[in-house]
Amino acid sequence: MSDQPLTGAEIELALSDLPGWTHEHDRLQSTWTFDGHLQALAAATGVGLLSERRNHHADLTINYNKLTVSVTTHSAGSKVSAKDTELAQAVSALLD
Amino acid sequence: MSDQPLTGAEIELALSDLPGWTHEHDRLQSTWTFDGHLQALAAATGVGLLSERRNHHADLTINYNKLTVSVTTHSAGSKVSAKDTELAQAVSALLD
Repeated sequence: MSDQPLTGAEIELALSDLPGWTHEHDRLQSTWTFDGHLQALAAATGVGLLSERRNHHADLTINYNKLTVSVTTHSAGSKVSAKDTELAQAVSALLD
Repeated sequence: MSDQPLTGAEIELALSDLPGWTHEHDRLQSTWTFDGHLQALAAATGVGLLSERRNHHADLTINYNKLTVSVTTHSAGSKVSAKDTELAQAVSALLD
């Protein structure tokens, strides 16, 4: 998959198919709320498995029962690339 | 365990027994580096189990193979309390 940064229009188009995700500071980010802390950690591990398979890793933050997933592509100059939109779609398919 | 904020001297004393932990912005924080992403996630889950048992939850951040653990006590005015130093010691006993 290309490491080229997406254009703003390409990102907007991708976001139209990614409910809950935002594009700020050259990252795609979304937060999920679960019933408890261990559920949030289990979800983080699931996202980690998706990341490992792609060798493209989301940053993960867990605050009690909330998991925030944030992606950017360092090899694209720390911009949003198709690697990020594809991973975001896989994460949403797992967690939504 | 008390929810009273610790004094600066009490925190310094506790830190002398917590290698790698820092005290900034009314939080105790430390970062561990692992062999890979899934190992960092497994470590985060271990910290989560320690937190659940105490009903006192650390904030967890995973960036690829790094896990950052950050604790404060909201019921102590978001200051560092004995709940934080005790959890920090348990986390270090698990991960060091």
